[in-house]
Amino acid sequence: MTLVMAEAPRPVPAGAKEALFAALASRFGPRFSLGQALRAQHANTLTWLKTEPPDAVLFAETSEEVSEVVRLCAEARMPVIPFGTGTSLEGHLNAPFGGISLDLSRMNRILAVHEADLDCVVEPGVTRKQLNDHLRDAGLFFPVDPGADASLGGMAATRASGTNAVRYGTMRDAVLGLTAVLADGSVITTGSRARKTASGYDLTRLLIGSEGTLGIITGLTLKLYGIPETILSGVCSFTSIEDACNATIAALQMGVPLARIELADEVQIRACNAYSHLVLPEQPTLFLEFHGTEAGTREQVASFAEIARAEGGGDLQWAARTEDRSKLWQARHDAYWAARALRPGAEIVSTDVCVPISALANNVSAAREDIDRLGLLAPIVGHVGDGNFHVMPLIDPASQEERRKVQEFLDRLVERALAAGGTCTGEHGIGQGKINYLAAEHGSAVLVMAAIKKALDPLNILNPGKIFALP
Amino acid sequence: MTLVMAEAPRPVPAGAKEALFAALASRFGPRFSLGQALRAQHANTLTWLKTEPPDAVLFAETSEEVSEVVRLCAEARMPVIPFGTGTSLEGHLNAPFGGISLDLSRMNRILAVHEADLDCVVEPGVTRKQLNDHLRDAGLFFPVDPGADASLGGMAATRASGTNAVRYGTMRDAVLGLTAVLADGSVITTGSRARKTASGYDLTRLLIGSEGTLGIITGLTLKLYGIPETILSGVCSFTSIEDACNATIAALQMGVPLARIELADEVQIRACNAYSHLVLPEQPTLFLEFHGTEAGTREQVASFAEIARAEGGGDLQWAARTEDRSKLWQARHDAYWAARALRPGAEIVSTDVCVPISALANNVSAAREDIDRLGLLAPIVGHVGDGNFHVMPLIDPASQEERRKVQEFLDRLVERALAAGGTCTGEHGIGQGKINYLAAEHGSAVLVMAAIKKALDPLNILNPGKIFALP
Repeated sequence: MTLVMAEAPRPVPAGAKEALFAALASRFGPRFSLGQALRAQHANTLTWLKTEPPDAVLFAETSEEVSEVVRLCAEARMPVIPFGTGTSLEGHLNAPFGGISLDLSRMNRILAVHEADLDCVVEPGVTRKQLNDHLRDAGLFFPVDPGADASLGGMAATRASGTNAVRYGTMRDAVLGLTAVLADGSVITTGSRARKTASGYDLTRLLIGSEGTLGIITGLTLKLYGIPETILSGVCSFTSIEDACNATIAALQMGVPLARIELADEVQIRACNAYSHLVLPEQPTLFLEFHGTEAGTREQVASFAEIARAEGGGDLQWAARTEDRSKLWQARHDAYWAARALRPGAEIVSTDVCVPISALANNVSAAREDIDRLGLLAPIVGHVGDGNFHVMPLIDPASQEERRKVQEFLDRLVERALAAGGTCTGEHGIGQGKINYLAAEHGSAVLVMAAIKKALDPLNILNPGKIFALP
Repeated sequence: MTLVMAEAPRPVPAGAKEALFAALASRFGPRFSLGQALRAQHANTLTWLKTEPPDAVLFAETSEEVSEVVRLCAEARMPVIPFGTGTSLEGHLNAPFGGISLDLSRMNRILAVHEADLDCVVEPGVTRKQLNDHLRDAGLFFPVDPGADASLGGMAATRASGTNAVRYGTMRDAVLGLTAVLADGSVITTGSRARKTASGYDLTRLLIGSEGTLGIITGLTLKLYGIPETILSGVCSFTSIEDACNATIAALQMGVPLARIELADEVQIRACNAYSHLVLPEQPTLFLEFHGTEAGTREQVASFAEIARAEGGGDLQWAARTEDRSKLWQARHDAYWAARALRPGAEIVSTDVCVPISALANNVSAAREDIDRLGLLAPIVGHVGDGNFHVMPLIDPASQEERRKVQEFLDRLVERALAAGGTCTGEHGIGQGKINYLAAEHGSAVLVMAAIKKALDPLNILNPGKIFALP
C-alpha cells in the first residue's frame, strides 16, 4: 500500500477559534472553561513527557452533547481530546496541536445490569471501582484491573488490562459493544449484547485501543463474572527470574487456572520492604491469586506449590481470609508508591513491553543489565502470565543526562521485545511516547492503520499527534 | 457519516481476461484451471443459495504467489475469492461477478509449535483436525471447533466458533496474529506472538470475520491449550427449553467452567433416535463436557447435576471413558446427518442467530412456533452457553413455496434476535445470505464498514458481493 496519511491538523482559521469558543461558552455555560489550572490538570499528568495543555476544557453530559461539540469542532478544525480520569501513561491527553479536552467524567451512570446475561451497560466516565461497588451486592464483578481507578471509556480507548488478564482477558475481551461519536459528529453503535457474532467487520475491536483517534466512546456494554466462591492468595520466592518464569510456564501448560500471577524483582521487593516495613526475602517473587470453588482453589494451590518446588522456588505461602490475603499481596499493591519512595522527588517513567513468555526471563534480565549499566534506578514488576512487564526508572526530570539514558534504555527494551516476537507495549498504548516504535513493530501494516484513520477522520481532529508520527 | 461505498466491480475490460488467464496459465501451469467441474466444486456448496461458479480456479502455494495473483487480478480488475475447504454456509464462495477462486488448501504446513508459549504458526490451508493430530503428542490442542474440518484461514475469515466457545472463545480470541495479502498485492503482518498488546489499531480483529473482503489470510499465529487432565461428558433431559436455558444461566452465574453445553430440541432428539438407534427421551436435552483435573471435573458434574435438578431437569448421566463419552454425545455429533435423514433428498438450510442468554428460551420457542405454523420441518440445536442457536429447515429446493416460507422464517428469526439485543449471525457470517440484515443490525455503523472497505479495496476485487449490499 502507498501511504495515505491523515495530514497534520491545519491551524484553526483566524477568527474561527474565537467564534467556536463563544458558541461553546454560550451553549455550555460554566461547563466550558478556559481556566489555566483546569487546562493544565487535563493535560498529560502521569508521564515524563512534556505537558501540552489543551486550549479549553468542556464537560459533556450526554452522547448527544459529545456529538454537538465534535460537529462544531469539525467546522472550526479544532482538535478534540477525550478525557476520562487522566491516568493514561504515554501522553494520550496532551494537546500538541491545541484543542478541546472533552471531559467525560460526568457521564458516569450505570444504565443497566443484566444479571442473567452477565453484562452491563455504562457511560464512559464510570470508573472500574464504581462499577464493582455497584455490582457487589448482585454477586458480580468486572475483572479488568489496570491498577488505577480509571474510567471504563478510557480503559477501552487504550485497550487496558492489568493483573488478572491472564484469566479474564483485557478490554479487548471485556467489551461486547460500544457507542461512539465519529469525527463528523455522527453516532454509531457497534456490537450487541450477544456473546459472539459473525456479523460484519469488528468495529468494537477497531475502536478499542484506538486511543480516541477514530471515535469518542460514549457508551459501553461490558461482560461481567460471578464473584468466585473462594479466593486464595499466595506468595513464593525464587532464586532467579528464570525459575519464576519457568514455574509460570509449567502452571499454564498444566492448565492451572491462575487468576493473577505477578512478578516483582529483587529491587522492587527491597523497595517494598522499606516502604511497607516487610521482611520478604529480597529475591524475585511471584504473587498469586486463585479463584474457584473451595476444593478447586485448594487443589490449585497444591498444584502450584509442587510446580514451584520443582523449579527451585521457596515455599508457597498462602491465605484465604481477606485481611491475610491483603497482607500477602501488600508488597505488590504498594509497588508503585514503594518505587517512588526509592528516590524522593524523582519522576517515575512507567513503561511496559510484552513478549512470548519463553522470552520473558531473558528480556527481564537484559533490562536489568541495561538499567545497572546505565546507572539508573528502576524496579521491575510483571504480569508474568501474559509475558508483560513494567520497568520504572526513577529520574531527575531536570537532568538531560538521565533523560538521554532513559531514552536509550527504552529503545533497547523495545528492540529486544520486538526481536523476541513481542510488542512495544502490552497495555499502556502508543500515545506520544511510543510513536517512534510503531513502524518498527508493524511494518507496512502501519499504512493500513493510517488509511483507516484517514478514511474515518480526514481532517485529523480526533486526538491528533497520537499513535501516528506525522509525515 | 455519508455513504462512501466500494462500487460494484467494473466488468473486466475486453481482452484483459484472456490476457490475464494466459499469463496465469503460463505462470502456474496445471495449478491454474478453467475446468467446469473444478469451478463448480469451488463455488458455494453447503447453502441453499444459487451456485455461482468462478471463472477459474488457481491453487496457490505461498504467500508470495497469492500476492502475485492479486497484483495481476487488480490490474485486470478481476475478482479474487479465497477458498479453504468449502464448508462456509452463507454463499461466501460464490462468484456473482465472476473471478478467480484462489484455493489455499495446499498451503497446509504447520510452520512452528512453541510449546512453552502455547502458540503455533500455520499456513491458512491447515485444517483444525490436521492441527490437533499434529499437537496431540505434545499434549496440546487448538479448541475452536465449528463441526466441519474447516481450514484455519477460512475459520478466521468467517470468525468461526462452535461447541466450546463458551469456555475457549471464538476465532476472534484464538488468533494472535495474521499474515494477509491486501487488494493491491502488498503483504502485511498483524499482531505478534505476545499474548496481549496495546500497540496501534487491532488489524488482526479487523481481518477476522471480514470474509475475504479486506485481505486474503496467508498465515496465522494461534493460541493453544494443554489437553485437560480429565474430560467428563454428560447428558441431561429437561421438560422445556426454558428449564434447560435456566439451568445454563445458573451454571454460568455460579462460574461452573463448562467446556461445552449444547442444546438439542425434541425434534432433533427424535431425528437422532431414529438415525442413531438411540432411546433418548424426546425432550429438550443438554449435552455437556467438563474439562479440568479429576477432582475438579467431578465437582463440576456434581454442581451441574444439582443445578439441573433445581431447574426441573432429569438425572445428569455422565461418563469419563472416551468410548462412553462418545456414546453419550453421539446424538449431538450426528445432529446434522440425523436432520438430513428426516427428509431424504431435501436441502438443509443451516442458519444461526445469537441472543443474550436470558432471551434464548423465548427466541427458540418462537422459532419453533414459526416453523410449525409454516408447516416446515426443522430441528433446532444450540450452543446454549453463548445464546447461539441453529435452525435447520429441510426443504425441497425445487419448491418456490417452501423457499418463500424459509425466507419468511429467516426474516422473523433475525428480527426477533435483533429486537432482543442479539445479532443476525453468531458464527456463520454474512456472506450473501444475510446481506439484507446487516443494516438492520448495525445501522449507520455499516457506513463505517463500507468506508473501510473502500479505503482498503477501492476497486472492490476482494470477494465482491459479500457482506455489503451493492448500491
